[in-house]
Amino acid sequence: MQHSADLYTSYLDLVQKAADIQYASAVLEWDQEVYMPAKGFKQRGRQLATLAAQAHDLLTSDKYGALLQELVQRDDLRLQQRANVKLSHEDYEKNRRLPSSFIEDITRQSSQSFNTWITARTENDYRTYASELKKMIALKKQQAEYYGYEQHPYNALLNDYEKGATVRLLDPVFAMVRENLPPILQKISEAKQVDNGFFHREFAKDKQWDFSIDVLKKMGYDFDAGRQDYAEHPFTTSFSSKDVRITTRVDEHNFASLLWSSIHEGGHALYEQGLPEHEYGLPLGSAASLAIHESQSRLWENCVGRGTHFWKYFYPVLQRSFAEQLADVTESAFYKGMNRVSSSLIRTEADEVTYHFHVMIRYEIEKALITGELDPNDISGAWNDMYEQYLGVRPADDKTGVLQDVHWCHGSFGYFPTYSLGSFYAAQFMEEAERQLPELYSDVEQGEFGKLLHWLRENIHQYGRMYTSEELCTKVTGKGLDFTCFMRYIRNKYNVIYNIV
Amino acid sequence: MQHSADLYTSYLDLVQKAADIQYASAVLEWDQEVYMPAKGFKQRGRQLATLAAQAHDLLTSDKYGALLQELVQRDDLRLQQRANVKLSHEDYEKNRRLPSSFIEDITRQSSQSFNTWITARTENDYRTYASELKKMIALKKQQAEYYGYEQHPYNALLNDYEKGATVRLLDPVFAMVRENLPPILQKISEAKQVDNGFFHREFAKDKQWDFSIDVLKKMGYDFDAGRQDYAEHPFTTSFSSKDVRITTRVDEHNFASLLWSSIHEGGHALYEQGLPEHEYGLPLGSAASLAIHESQSRLWENCVGRGTHFWKYFYPVLQRSFAEQLADVTESAFYKGMNRVSSSLIRTEADEVTYHFHVMIRYEIEKALITGELDPNDISGAWNDMYEQYLGVRPADDKTGVLQDVHWCHGSFGYFPTYSLGSFYAAQFMEEAERQLPELYSDVEQGEFGKLLHWLRENIHQYGRMYTSEELCTKVTGKGLDFTCFMRYIRNKYNVIYNIV
Repeated sequence: MQHSADLYTSYLDLVQKAADIQYASAVLEWDQEVYMPAKGFKQRGRQLATLAAQAHDLLTSDKYGALLQELVQRDDLRLQQRANVKLSHEDYEKNRRLPSSFIEDITRQSSQSFNTWITARTENDYRTYASELKKMIALKKQQAEYYGYEQHPYNALLNDYEKGATVRLLDPVFAMVRENLPPILQKISEAKQVDNGFFHREFAKDKQWDFSIDVLKKMGYDFDAGRQDYAEHPFTTSFSSKDVRITTRVDEHNFASLLWSSIHEGGHALYEQGLPEHEYGLPLGSAASLAIHESQSRLWENCVGRGTHFWKYFYPVLQRSFAEQLADVTESAFYKGMNRVSSSLIRTEADEVTYHFHVMIRYEIEKALITGELDPNDISGAWNDMYEQYLGVRPADDKTGVLQDVHWCHGSFGYFPTYSLGSFYAAQFMEEAERQLPELYSDVEQGEFGKLLHWLRENIHQYGRMYTSEELCTKVTGKGLDFTCFMRYIRNKYNVIYNIV
Repeated sequence: MQHSADLYTSYLDLVQKAADIQYASAVLEWDQEVYMPAKGFKQRGRQLATLAAQAHDLLTSDKYGALLQELVQRDDLRLQQRANVKLSHEDYEKNRRLPSSFIEDITRQSSQSFNTWITARTENDYRTYASELKKMIALKKQQAEYYGYEQHPYNALLNDYEKGATVRLLDPVFAMVRENLPPILQKISEAKQVDNGFFHREFAKDKQWDFSIDVLKKMGYDFDAGRQDYAEHPFTTSFSSKDVRITTRVDEHNFASLLWSSIHEGGHALYEQGLPEHEYGLPLGSAASLAIHESQSRLWENCVGRGTHFWKYFYPVLQRSFAEQLADVTESAFYKGMNRVSSSLIRTEADEVTYHFHVMIRYEIEKALITGELDPNDISGAWNDMYEQYLGVRPADDKTGVLQDVHWCHGSFGYFPTYSLGSFYAAQFMEEAERQLPELYSDVEQGEFGKLLHWLRENIHQYGRMYTSEELCTKVTGKGLDFTCFMRYIRNKYNVIYNIV
């Protein structure tokens, strides 16, 4: 019988080779978003397809399957090794359930839906997109069948993004959104609205950029193991924990555009930089889940970067940089401005309260699409009705309505809920960090984030995929997801800003 | 029996998949030189190694061999298809001659030599590097044996960079360098030296950059299928004919640093952008040889970009951009300054005449190393003696002597001669272009390069690897490499500049 250590080495060799190829793909994708010249698109597409197929072949090979089958039975592996093997085995079983022909079909459909989406947006007409979306939804239903599921087919898709997430767990969460947030919104709408007009003065691009770099450095983002660039849609990508890159965008006439994107992506990046280097390419070297990833970005963006303590340190710095633009803006006015709550149509521009209605609406629509209760032809109408019902605003066209997100083109059904979960976990983690680190905010007021980052590293980052989101949350805070933490965070914040206690 | 068309499709599928992987590697290498954060090095190294192995496995597989074996016998393929198959078959046979263990050894030694070279340069001491170089030379001798050769083992290595190149062909070429150039250098040394001190005034980086972009656009470089970035060592790389990138460097106090690097790399890039898109990843979609590649960069850099006609158009533009710096510099003085001939120690900074002594010295040393006539421990001494003999300058240390080039670290023995061949082919092509395009220089004087580029596209670029350098040269100019063209070019140019007719 082969030694477990030797088997594990064979496993490492294969998985890390696949990771090399996948990280190479990520470099090509990063380049495509950031620096690739326009005409390079076609060949880049085939290069990415080839790399994906090469990695897929390795990770679904019979040889790999046999190796995992043998390894999961070995009890003389170390704890971390056992965790890696167990998770890889789960991934393998899942990957194998999808036939190659299905992968090809959905890849082709994804690119087809994306092209049609682009046209539909240009023409501002959902109908042209509906038929392609219909095909994609049929494929996602098929995928749910391939995966198998309990209770609800949507559960199978949710699991692709958030292991353990189910309709039974999420329905109550979004019910709480529907129940708890409207009274707050109501009070805010009755209070005196805060001003944020000064964000639209002229802020020189390079100075915005420099300020974001200062902030990222203070947060602890390691620029020797990462970099920031411009891209149309901000994102974070990683080619190992030693090369984690973020992108941001800039608008000279909207100060809110660059900075909080940088902080948000910086939060994602700190997580990736904090994953254990020696677990390169392995489950324990990867993030726990999308929701936990999002908890890190939102903790930094919202709990920290839109907090009073943060700006106690940074506002004087910013005012020095934009002396003219901010001369008549007090720290308090600046703080209130960045936290202005107001119903709007576009998810990515929404404030911390109304945001979750955007997600909830998508969640409800996705569920109904997957069960067939909602016909893809009718999404636009359903969308607009729900926006009117929950946010009191009705899209005047599809571009500011159902056509605003790219996710469904790529078949990402079940992804949106992780955004809200991320905010809720963030509030819960932050509450725990406050409890455990009495000096947290006095540090933040001095531009010191070392203890907070260390706490996140110790409690979350170092574990990779060792625990599911719920397990990790319980390990860190003593309980599973608790929506009341988010509510406390929201009430504390907006009671002060809108004076609505 | 399988249809030839089907077999050819299988061939395309395999070769173009390997090309996808190789181009992906090129993206990772580009990124490594241009944007990668410092700590990303280690994992990038393993990612590149994995991709190289994946491509190598495809291109040396028995399956591929059998396919090629069958296809080379088919006579019902189109001319271009036959050429692709024939060249791929040659490549395959060659690749198969090197055992995997040898590839691993030389890859490891390359990285080891490179590290030692870095240290040796820092410590300015050749001796620490000699023992690693010795191992590399032993491996290259071994490689020559694996390949097999006629007459001289160095021929096997030369062929890696320049198919058909042999000592028997190159010895006379470098003999002509030794015979024909010294009298010119002698005359120049007796003439009044031209001034180029004004190059060292302060030239703002961004304005240098903008000017290079203008020049590249005028040359016909397509920025929608390419881009320019900064890198420590300028280079050109290609991920398809629709994504061909160049890099340059900048020195605020040396105007010569950026511009001619850009033009040189631009020349390489125009070649790559001119390769047929439908031959993606195939021999006919690749450059003919390193020498022909270099002929394109040097034709643009020297024959065009250091010529009077070019500056008739561009000097007024440049003077507007650097009004203060160039106020007292006439067009003629500027032209002479950029063509100043003066013996020096560093190859990459050498002028068009002395340059070929730098190459000749390396060529002679490489030959002697491969036959064993020269011991690696003695290179430094031999190098310095030859510099003194041919250029009249003796390196004061190894950093400005034998340690200046990176090539030998990577085992690139046989590469240097292609630099000189490139210059000689360039002069010969340009002479032919002048003959065939009567309006060539009147166009250039108006900043119009369209006809020249078209001529290069039609006569050289479109063929890819269809012809060897010598075949192509004969097809274009009616004869094989003719050193007298270069001599005419040099005499015409320097007779005027130094007034030495």
